[in-house]
Amino acid sequence: MITTMSNLFLRTLREDPAEAELDSHKLLVRAGYIRRAAPGVYTWLPLGLRVLRKIETIVREEMERAGAQEVLFPALLPADAYKATGRWEEYGPLLFRLKDRRGGDYLLAPTHEEQFTLLVKSMFSSYKDLPLTIYQIQTKYRDEARPRGGLLRGREFIMKDAYSFDLDADELESSYQAQRKAYQAIFDRLGLEYVICSAMAGAMGGSKSEEFLHPSGVGEDTYVVSPGGYVANTEAVTTVVPNPLPMEGLPPAQVFPTPNTPTIDSLVAVANAEHPRSDREWTAADTLKNVVFAVTSPEGERTLVVVGLPGDREVDVKRLEAALAPAEVEVATEEDFEKHPELVQGYIGPEVLSPNGGEVRYLLDPRVVDGTAWITGANKKDHHVFGLVKGRDFQADGTIEAAEVRAGDPAPDGSGALEIHRGIEIGHIFQLGQKYAKALDLKVLDQNGKTQTVTMGSYGIGVSRVLAAMAESFRDESGLAWPSVVAPFDVQVVVAGKGEELDTVALDLATQCEAAGMDVLLDERRGVSAGVKFADAELLGVPLILVVGRGLKDGVVELRERRTGVRDNIPVAEALEEVWKRHGLLVEEGR
Amino acid sequence: MITTMSNLFLRTLREDPAEAELDSHKLLVRAGYIRRAAPGVYTWLPLGLRVLRKIETIVREEMERAGAQEVLFPALLPADAYKATGRWEEYGPLLFRLKDRRGGDYLLAPTHEEQFTLLVKSMFSSYKDLPLTIYQIQTKYRDEARPRGGLLRGREFIMKDAYSFDLDADELESSYQAQRKAYQAIFDRLGLEYVICSAMAGAMGGSKSEEFLHPSGVGEDTYVVSPGGYVANTEAVTTVVPNPLPMEGLPPAQVFPTPNTPTIDSLVAVANAEHPRSDREWTAADTLKNVVFAVTSPEGERTLVVVGLPGDREVDVKRLEAALAPAEVEVATEEDFEKHPELVQGYIGPEVLSPNGGEVRYLLDPRVVDGTAWITGANKKDHHVFGLVKGRDFQADGTIEAAEVRAGDPAPDGSGALEIHRGIEIGHIFQLGQKYAKALDLKVLDQNGKTQTVTMGSYGIGVSRVLAAMAESFRDESGLAWPSVVAPFDVQVVVAGKGEELDTVALDLATQCEAAGMDVLLDERRGVSAGVKFADAELLGVPLILVVGRGLKDGVVELRERRTGVRDNIPVAEALEEVWKRHGLLVEEGR
Repeated sequence: MITTMSNLFLRTLREDPAEAELDSHKLLVRAGYIRRAAPGVYTWLPLGLRVLRKIETIVREEMERAGAQEVLFPALLPADAYKATGRWEEYGPLLFRLKDRRGGDYLLAPTHEEQFTLLVKSMFSSYKDLPLTIYQIQTKYRDEARPRGGLLRGREFIMKDAYSFDLDADELESSYQAQRKAYQAIFDRLGLEYVICSAMAGAMGGSKSEEFLHPSGVGEDTYVVSPGGYVANTEAVTTVVPNPLPMEGLPPAQVFPTPNTPTIDSLVAVANAEHPRSDREWTAADTLKNVVFAVTSPEGERTLVVVGLPGDREVDVKRLEAALAPAEVEVATEEDFEKHPELVQGYIGPEVLSPNGGEVRYLLDPRVVDGTAWITGANKKDHHVFGLVKGRDFQADGTIEAAEVRAGDPAPDGSGALEIHRGIEIGHIFQLGQKYAKALDLKVLDQNGKTQTVTMGSYGIGVSRVLAAMAESFRDESGLAWPSVVAPFDVQVVVAGKGEELDTVALDLATQCEAAGMDVLLDERRGVSAGVKFADAELLGVPLILVVGRGLKDGVVELRERRTGVRDNIPVAEALEEVWKRHGLLVEEGR
Repeated sequence: MITTMSNLFLRTLREDPAEAELDSHKLLVRAGYIRRAAPGVYTWLPLGLRVLRKIETIVREEMERAGAQEVLFPALLPADAYKATGRWEEYGPLLFRLKDRRGGDYLLAPTHEEQFTLLVKSMFSSYKDLPLTIYQIQTKYRDEARPRGGLLRGREFIMKDAYSFDLDADELESSYQAQRKAYQAIFDRLGLEYVICSAMAGAMGGSKSEEFLHPSGVGEDTYVVSPGGYVANTEAVTTVVPNPLPMEGLPPAQVFPTPNTPTIDSLVAVANAEHPRSDREWTAADTLKNVVFAVTSPEGERTLVVVGLPGDREVDVKRLEAALAPAEVEVATEEDFEKHPELVQGYIGPEVLSPNGGEVRYLLDPRVVDGTAWITGANKKDHHVFGLVKGRDFQADGTIEAAEVRAGDPAPDGSGALEIHRGIEIGHIFQLGQKYAKALDLKVLDQNGKTQTVTMGSYGIGVSRVLAAMAESFRDESGLAWPSVVAPFDVQVVVAGKGEELDTVALDLATQCEAAGMDVLLDERRGVSAGVKFADAELLGVPLILVVGRGLKDGVVELRERRTGVRDNIPVAEALEEVWKRHGLLVEEGR
């Protein structure tokens, strides 16, 4: 059936929605693809639903090709299994919790590792049943503190999550590779650019993990790339640790008064003015700054962590959070300092922090190796200590990857200097190992009749986020510009002008295109100017626009390609053939 | 791709699941279609999901044919709109309520009238935009006190809900008829028997309403049918009210001691023994019994209602609840009676109940008309009053349709004596009128430039419940027996016996069937007996079973029709043709 603009449940908007910051979000709302129902919660309008379904179909096809079988879990789940694995608490305020009429604890599932594990446990018992990969495309819930970008970070969102079950690590590796390959096929078919990054497993537990990031300036993730091919999420980058230095012969540490040095820069200036080095100038890299954070465990326990790092680097809070997950992290408050009078703000030094079994943990950047000497706080207002040597004068409770990664830093695998980019996380694959199988006791009998704990993988694609990423990627100043593989319609036929003949020819061409197997949107609105119709067509982003207008008196219609802007006049009699050919080309070229 | 039993994520069970009462529920779990995740909350396994998707596709096709456009709303919604219409309270404990991290009130939507109304309001403003019908197939939530029958009454379930928007009642009527016709088409295509019943609009508000009930002994609804074609849900049946009788000359009421008359029967026996009538025997229909109920309003206010009805009828609590909706009803407790010492249990009479502006409301069965005389309680232990005349000796606060409807009762439209049947509610269509449009201020400009409140309809199909009803309807003692239109596979090829030739021929036939466009399940399991495979095939309920077994040495395979049990030997070379033909016949005949 041809869809007509007069009947389509659609109103395009000229004004940007107040809640939107990103262009893709503004356009999806203005073009009538989605509507906000609550912060981070969206309604799918007919156009949006069409695009969503096309993405889902591609995901399903590639999952099936990879041998994964589709199931569908509830979103509303009893808390028991999540309590057994600890995630009932670990998720903190991110989890929507509720009670049923009998007072039972329930949640809206943010992900389904527990449920898949329990289901397989209830059905399978032998190595012969493995390998198994099952998946679902399902609505998930996370009470994000800061929902963002419309569908980019929602509180209700659609996800494809797959889970693999294997007998050992080798088989897990091959299940993992099958999903990895399926992900590549999915994003290739969608025409959505991506990089595969090493990633932190984070709150999911487990070991190996990779992210599929779509390079985008509006992405929330940062990743690094080296000339030699190292690609990793910034959170997962490990610091190249220098060798320890000899400590013999180093001069003893000395405390100097250093008034008016509230910043690293002012400290370095005073050091060079009043205590100059003979060989070179002091720089920020010679200072050791100690930054205090409050860390809240999933159980709600709040402790302090001091991160010591070279003064020329900032703490990257996302890296810090990843390193301390699932705990939550914030900068220490005045109240925290009041409870710890030994921490003299602005002048905190390692000497009061060195491991003492006390409440405050001291964690060092890996660059702070034994034998390095530092200018750092003397634990006394307006005083710093010079030449304080790690390994001689102070120790720490451990190291932490919390310092910012900078362009030019060396790749951990020696493949050169890192570049830094931003990206949108569109997929994430994990080798979970036995974390969930152990917690929920999923075992099978192996070839020798012995029970073996199953080893698992987990594989997610944010389906609604992929749509947002595509909207962000495929647009221009006039509106959306979908690749044909996901476009809500293949061709939009526009009646540009008045007269019965225009209406007749347009309807006829639309009918022909529909009969040929294309999805057609016919803009036959009366009392709407050609200009408004063109603007709407550009906003909607259908790949081919067939204009039936002034040229008709000369027997031609105009075919426009939305993405390239190419326009051609075509004789009416050849219009169907040309549209069909052009549509085929777009599909073939993945445009 | 051919699905094989070795790979399919499936374990059939020989034992009935403990939680299941209904045969359909037992079979769906045993045959591996669904698994329980929590009371009234189910996981869809691959087979169940295939059937569900086929039902959804038919629903979508008929919705599209009826001109309805698909959208998709969130399940997680802010409470505001539901507070505006009063349903936040009205739904009582049926509503899953929760709070987000900022303390905002949210709910899991049990139905979406509010959201659809607000969406249309935000987009449309003119009569030119109407009529409009939009729908979704979406997951809904109701915290049922008694989840039942697996998918039959779940707490998380899948529903198709459509909403129409019109300018006036005539246009609503035609939108309503379009949906009604689509419903008929859907259930016809599914081959699921149904009746269309007049129904109560209930908590949905509005006026006209009809239910689609699937006749079934395990249904929760009862409906009546008259020889003249009256069909209604029992809740919606109105009593044929007799004419009032003249009161002149009736003897005065008299109180008699009536010890040991705890039941209506014993009261009638005592009446006949001690106070006989001259013309005929007393019967239960001469007594007026007064039954006390506690009614809790959505706001939580608990009051008492006394229902007075002829002693030969029981109160039908579902009719009572429908009459008092959205309030909740339960039998009065001892505590209730303690607060009302004027209510003498077992001897409650109308005289203390007659309208007095008091807390207890007295509502009479419509048969208790003016001039009728009754034996009833005397408000004093062990005493009844005889000859108490309605209209002379007592009044009430009103009438109520709460008495049971019985086979043989007259149809309200005079079309004969009622029969009573049970059914499963599979669809419900409502003319809502302006209830939601008024509450949420949905108006458009009419042809004269004046604002008009929009009039609405609401149309639901319990998609997951339809699947349960089909399982209940299409089964036998061996298992499920799906009609081909929804079956998870079109044909199941079974290797019955050992030998490479059997495997090869079976795979070849399966491949041919798949290539011909059928969905094929191949049971090529080794180490599983033919008997077990046949039992599994009968349990699963695929319409055609192609057995590659002993006959192969004579060049034949056996084709079985699951529902009829018909078996035919077919030469291997003709097998594909025969399967294809038989499959076509099943589809064509809706079997």
